[in-house]
Amino acid sequence: MTKGNINVSVENIFPLIKKFLYSDHEIFLRELISNATDATLKLKHLTNIGESKVEYGHPQVEVKIDKDNKKLHIIDQGLGMTAEEVEKYINQVAFSGAEEFLDKYKDSAKDSGIIGHFGLGFYSAFMVADKVEIITKSHTDAPAAHWTCDGSPQYTLEEADKTDRGTEIILHIAEDSTEFLEENRISALLSKYNKFMPVPIKFGTKTETLPKPEDAKEDDPAPTKEVDNIINNPNPAWTKQPADLEAEDYKNFYRELYPMQFEEPLFNIHLNVDYPFNLTGILYFPKLAADMQVQKDKIQLYQNQVFVTDNVEGIVPDFLTMLRGVIDSPDIPLNVSRSYLQADGAVKKISSYITRKVADKMKSLFNNNREEFEVKWNDIKIVIEYGMLSEEKFFEKADAFALYPTVDGKFYTFEELTNAIKAKQTDKDDKMVILYASNKDEQHAYIEAAKAKDYEVLLLDSPIISHLMQKLETSKENISFARVDADHIDNLIKKDDTTISKLSEDEQKSLDELLKEVVPSEKFSVQLEAMDSSATPFMITQPEFMRRMKEMQQTGGGGMNMFGNMPEMYNLVVNTNSDLVGEILNTKTKKKQERLINQSLDLARLSQGLLKGEELTNFIKRSYEMIK
Amino acid sequence: MTKGNINVSVENIFPLIKKFLYSDHEIFLRELISNATDATLKLKHLTNIGESKVEYGHPQVEVKIDKDNKKLHIIDQGLGMTAEEVEKYINQVAFSGAEEFLDKYKDSAKDSGIIGHFGLGFYSAFMVADKVEIITKSHTDAPAAHWTCDGSPQYTLEEADKTDRGTEIILHIAEDSTEFLEENRISALLSKYNKFMPVPIKFGTKTETLPKPEDAKEDDPAPTKEVDNIINNPNPAWTKQPADLEAEDYKNFYRELYPMQFEEPLFNIHLNVDYPFNLTGILYFPKLAADMQVQKDKIQLYQNQVFVTDNVEGIVPDFLTMLRGVIDSPDIPLNVSRSYLQADGAVKKISSYITRKVADKMKSLFNNNREEFEVKWNDIKIVIEYGMLSEEKFFEKADAFALYPTVDGKFYTFEELTNAIKAKQTDKDDKMVILYASNKDEQHAYIEAAKAKDYEVLLLDSPIISHLMQKLETSKENISFARVDADHIDNLIKKDDTTISKLSEDEQKSLDELLKEVVPSEKFSVQLEAMDSSATPFMITQPEFMRRMKEMQQTGGGGMNMFGNMPEMYNLVVNTNSDLVGEILNTKTKKKQERLINQSLDLARLSQGLLKGEELTNFIKRSYEMIK
Repeated sequence: MTKGNINVSVENIFPLIKKFLYSDHEIFLRELISNATDATLKLKHLTNIGESKVEYGHPQVEVKIDKDNKKLHIIDQGLGMTAEEVEKYINQVAFSGAEEFLDKYKDSAKDSGIIGHFGLGFYSAFMVADKVEIITKSHTDAPAAHWTCDGSPQYTLEEADKTDRGTEIILHIAEDSTEFLEENRISALLSKYNKFMPVPIKFGTKTETLPKPEDAKEDDPAPTKEVDNIINNPNPAWTKQPADLEAEDYKNFYRELYPMQFEEPLFNIHLNVDYPFNLTGILYFPKLAADMQVQKDKIQLYQNQVFVTDNVEGIVPDFLTMLRGVIDSPDIPLNVSRSYLQADGAVKKISSYITRKVADKMKSLFNNNREEFEVKWNDIKIVIEYGMLSEEKFFEKADAFALYPTVDGKFYTFEELTNAIKAKQTDKDDKMVILYASNKDEQHAYIEAAKAKDYEVLLLDSPIISHLMQKLETSKENISFARVDADHIDNLIKKDDTTISKLSEDEQKSLDELLKEVVPSEKFSVQLEAMDSSATPFMITQPEFMRRMKEMQQTGGGGMNMFGNMPEMYNLVVNTNSDLVGEILNTKTKKKQERLINQSLDLARLSQGLLKGEELTNFIKRSYEMIK
Repeated sequence: MTKGNINVSVENIFPLIKKFLYSDHEIFLRELISNATDATLKLKHLTNIGESKVEYGHPQVEVKIDKDNKKLHIIDQGLGMTAEEVEKYINQVAFSGAEEFLDKYKDSAKDSGIIGHFGLGFYSAFMVADKVEIITKSHTDAPAAHWTCDGSPQYTLEEADKTDRGTEIILHIAEDSTEFLEENRISALLSKYNKFMPVPIKFGTKTETLPKPEDAKEDDPAPTKEVDNIINNPNPAWTKQPADLEAEDYKNFYRELYPMQFEEPLFNIHLNVDYPFNLTGILYFPKLAADMQVQKDKIQLYQNQVFVTDNVEGIVPDFLTMLRGVIDSPDIPLNVSRSYLQADGAVKKISSYITRKVADKMKSLFNNNREEFEVKWNDIKIVIEYGMLSEEKFFEKADAFALYPTVDGKFYTFEELTNAIKAKQTDKDDKMVILYASNKDEQHAYIEAAKAKDYEVLLLDSPIISHLMQKLETSKENISFARVDADHIDNLIKKDDTTISKLSEDEQKSLDELLKEVVPSEKFSVQLEAMDSSATPFMITQPEFMRRMKEMQQTGGGGMNMFGNMPEMYNLVVNTNSDLVGEILNTKTKKKQERLINQSLDLARLSQGLLKGEELTNFIKRSYEMIK
């Protein structure tokens, strides 16, 4: 048996790093700026604890394009390196200086915000450059060093005459990467990855207008001055304490995050926890667009203020991916598969922490300013309802703030609703019937009929509401939901009192026969009812169960497949006590009877939105005739 | 100045490989099976050219789970390795045997389908295993070798007693990766990545029913036999020549690709090119669902029969991402950013080749079987129309097969359409007016009015059709599209002949005043027209330009933002020659006049779908009264 060491040959691994280190080449800039930021934060730490004697001052990271010479410079004023340190940290691929630093200064450096992890970041430079130089001067007295490498494993190292501390990285951009010499491209990258990094980043200069001197003439142009163009906000709102922020600060930060977004957010939720995991962030409820899908992927994930991704699937519960904002946590393992992520214990805890925070915030917003909460309900309800459906814990908490609006613009919590309708809307079997409409216009006549009985009608129009009703019916006791057009109102809430029919049994029988001759049975089941004489003579209803199952099937899950393919089934409710129905019975000729029934049926269909196309055109023609 | 070599320390790089080699750990299985397949194909090549004397036979790759001992085995019957080869290929990370092999056998091995590239794949085993063994016996006479490594850089190598040629990899699955000991999980992975790899892959056995022997009694169970469960099809349809495939073969392959898809595909397009790039594949037009978004990400990308991704964004033109099927090309650079991919010359050529192939196929389908093409038009039109909008070359080619259906179910090409309508639908300014409806039901009365004039009415109802009309209007000469309800029909296609008004100028003036008193001016502009006396008395129209701009804005791009927020504007066209209008003028009391106008206005609104909610309920009530 032989023993040996696996050998990694630099000649083999180098081309791989160049091609495959990151699937996205643009990442190189993020990595180099992270290194520059780390070098600065390390110096800050060392000056803080007295291990470096230099003046920390106000260091920046600078990014500079030299298009003529095809070079890109990244310059920091951090702790720099001696020639020995270059040997150690640069010439050994995958030796992470950051890890060593954190090890050495374990306790004191814990919160210093240092980013680096694996010591590979620097080599990402070779993804876009065919030659890389490092000119660096340590914060100690050691002389400056100049390191050069052309992408082969060979490097040169010599003394340099740089006198100010810090490191300059010079990338000689390769022929296939000249996009990274374009100001627009670099500017876009800085704004994507580095917008909130903790050390100021300078990219070029900009012109600032100064106030006019007092003795200036009116026509004199205002004086201007060239100043550094700082592309980042080193202290973004989420890194601060909630107590230090006003409502306006949250709004301003939203604008910083989404400069192209003109609508203001509805609510914000500040996340801030450091045990058992580290997580900060601010989530916003935006005004939602009609299309739920477009909403997604708007939450940005950061690690120590460095942008990582806007795909938070698996980290944030699905119903909250419609929100916007920022989450920053060094504790989220990202380079694992999403399915693994969802099973990860730490990530599960993060997800349920966020859910809880959102529920708590909703509750306090509701309690503190119910009026405002009601105004915003229509914009946030999808998120809340989706959360109630998908997260049991959230469902329980939401009982305190989920609202049920009526067609008249009143808002009830579930408890308030049951108290309000208990007396009138409990049927003879002791079941409380919650009436609702999905559209005030389309179901207008039915809503009026319910209101005539002094019943409350909710307006429930979210795409997923049928699923939520199903859930409420099983988790609350003795309630059921019924849409106002599911039957005529006396059948929806059955009481003991019965209306007496004006028609004799014989008359009813001959009416039934007559109707069945005229009304197509494949479309409508005729249902005779003795209702108030003032109620509508003909009315089309659609049974609750079948309609809801179909709706549930359309919006996915829950409802069973079989229902989606069933034809629409309608009942034709005929009010035997209405004058018109009496008249139909008493009309002498069959032809006239048929005309009356058909015109009434058309009106009933019109009321339910079922009269269309040629039938509608014919109805209108007939009606013009009748006007004359 | 010092010179030196950058040093990659295996202690540092090894943990990185384990964590970061692939962001998805499950990839390990694909990599190991690719290696096993390569080893088999290499042996095939060597036996073909006479460099190996062994019998090639019918080698398989076998995957075996040993749940009790937490081991996963991948076993091949390929060319195997000697101890020296293990030293060379395994102990040197990132030394690719495949590249060396292809270099050595450049000419003869070009089409052997060998997959490996960078020699890192094997190490992905350490993403899921904390110990890996290799037991391998070369096809030469050398003794077998047994290599073991526990994830540290140290390995042991000793002789083994394996006698049959080939390599067995044994993974001792790590505690956090026990999912890969589940049969379901492995089975799903094999089906995702290896379903079409070129060497048979065995995973367990299955029971096959044999025919009953002739002397069996009726109650005897049919005899069964355990056979290898081969999970892949080593010769998928796309690797064959189109000439060798029947229509049924394409359908069968579709079912292989999408076993859960019950609808048959409409058309298939076989891609097959080897210069200037290598590309094979089969694309299918599926029946499209209503939601365009859900359609996407159904094309699978392979490289040498190994599944890579189902995200073909940037490789296939956007309008074709609604198709399904397979593309296989070793020439698509995948580990670069998507934005780079889109700019890549080779990828651009691939994309335009696919576009051209799709256009050519559509043209030949249209020419060979126009009837079938027409039947399928509604299912494919979105793809074609989207292509016409987004790819200029495709727009030009599509002129030969893009169809324009009429409300009566006729189908025209653009040229046929213009020939058919030129005579009748050219207006007095020599412009040809193409009439269309977006909904046969909703615009029924307007369609009837146009048909009464013997005009053709197209039925154009795709979501993006307004953009396409805009494009056709600018690229074709002297045509314009008008929806049938954009004005009354004599105004839509203006001829020289004018209808004489029955009303005097004075009567017209007093009618106009009367109407303006009753009709709300913020909703409708009154427009008096002397039309046929048989035409409808009142009619609501919506001008083409504004409506189309709004539609374009809703479906994105093209239309300008400003239009989206404009209120809906309607005209009320009143036919001064209709009897009813004469009657309104002659009615004595103002009150009766108003009632007539309101009822007529309601009927006109009904016809345009504008009468809703309370107004509809009131109209219906009024109409019930009028029946009696």
